[in-house]
Amino acid sequence: MPRRRSKPSDSTIRRLSLYLRALEGLEAEGEATVSSELLAERVGTTAAQVRKDLSHFGSFGKRGLGYQVTPLQARLQDILGLGRRWPVVLVGAGRIGSALFEYPHFGARGFEIVTILDRDPNKVGQRWGGVEISHISELESLVRGAGVELAILTVPREGAQEVAEALVTAGVRGILNFAPTQLRLPPEIEVNDVNLALELEALSFALHLDRPRAEDADFGSGGV
Amino acid sequence: MPRRRSKPSDSTIRRLSLYLRALEGLEAEGEATVSSELLAERVGTTAAQVRKDLSHFGSFGKRGLGYQVTPLQARLQDILGLGRRWPVVLVGAGRIGSALFEYPHFGARGFEIVTILDRDPNKVGQRWGGVEISHISELESLVRGAGVELAILTVPREGAQEVAEALVTAGVRGILNFAPTQLRLPPEIEVNDVNLALELEALSFALHLDRPRAEDADFGSGGV
Repeated sequence: MPRRRSKPSDSTIRRLSLYLRALEGLEAEGEATVSSELLAERVGTTAAQVRKDLSHFGSFGKRGLGYQVTPLQARLQDILGLGRRWPVVLVGAGRIGSALFEYPHFGARGFEIVTILDRDPNKVGQRWGGVEISHISELESLVRGAGVELAILTVPREGAQEVAEALVTAGVRGILNFAPTQLRLPPEIEVNDVNLALELEALSFALHLDRPRAEDADFGSGGV
Repeated sequence: MPRRRSKPSDSTIRRLSLYLRALEGLEAEGEATVSSELLAERVGTTAAQVRKDLSHFGSFGKRGLGYQVTPLQARLQDILGLGRRWPVVLVGAGRIGSALFEYPHFGARGFEIVTILDRDPNKVGQRWGGVEISHISELESLVRGAGVELAILTVPREGAQEVAEALVTAGVRGILNFAPTQLRLPPEIEVNDVNLALELEALSFALHLDRPRAEDADFGSGGV
């Protein structure tokens, strides 16, 4: 099989994460090998998709034997950049921030929130676990000092752009953005938006599709 | 312009939500019309994409005048099923559940958590806002009784499948799933997965891409 080395899509990367979870489950069940069919079933895709996704990343040439669970797991961890610890800065010590700080699945993947920042003087100085909440004005020194490259942003919409720019200046290269706004940052900065209201809207759209719809109307053209 | 009525993709629906947010901002700024160029800029896409997305849903024939902000906003709300109240059941009264219950952007869209369920007897009977936490054993009667069609699932991986099946039996048609597992449900049930660790993994993958990679290895083939 020829090697394909085109840049994998976001959806491929997401499936790699799902394969990794499935392999961890299989290892816990004592399985040494797994077919593309079973791996596909565990993550809700097709065997052809599994083979295509994995072909991006190396040679999988021996037919009929299935994948070896433990080595493939190690390889996926390596591909996903999980063979190391990732210090993370959390900006916004509100409810969502607190829930994320306690989220057990981050730590298991090497993501460790080492710095928490907020602008509320009532929150600054509080401790979450072993981490003290610092004032946002210390962003640059704390982020740069700890060599932090990943940030989780859970501030209100209004302050998000300014904070994001300060994070990038301080050396952050990837942002998980919970603020419901489109951040404008240099193209080399990776931003993943998690817009929770939008997720519910996608569901309500789907449920609504079955129902009678209002007459189409004409709202003018956006063309020029 | 011919009408297109193919089923819109998930990414189209997500952009409709973003257009709606942008239109709300524009209305607050006192704008009566907006060009596809400006709307595109506000949501981080292209003008051609805006025109294509909106063409799924009706006639936008008058060139050069731009879209009318308020009517288009109303139409997008209607398309997204937001012209009504959606009662929602939250299963899992943990940290993430609590953060979601307080999340202000749900209520603004008509999503109202009317039922909270948990299996922990220490949580049952507590009140969040005006809503009392009920025991999971009351799932069917409470969900069916309130005509709830949308659920937010924030239980651990282990219990997620069983709870999801019970929700469907009770009449739920759409699930926002925070449990890190692939739910197996009838195809007519809409499930949106929010896997927060996976979002961070996608970032670490991107940051890791710049770095030296381990040698490719051969893990066998998943083919049969």
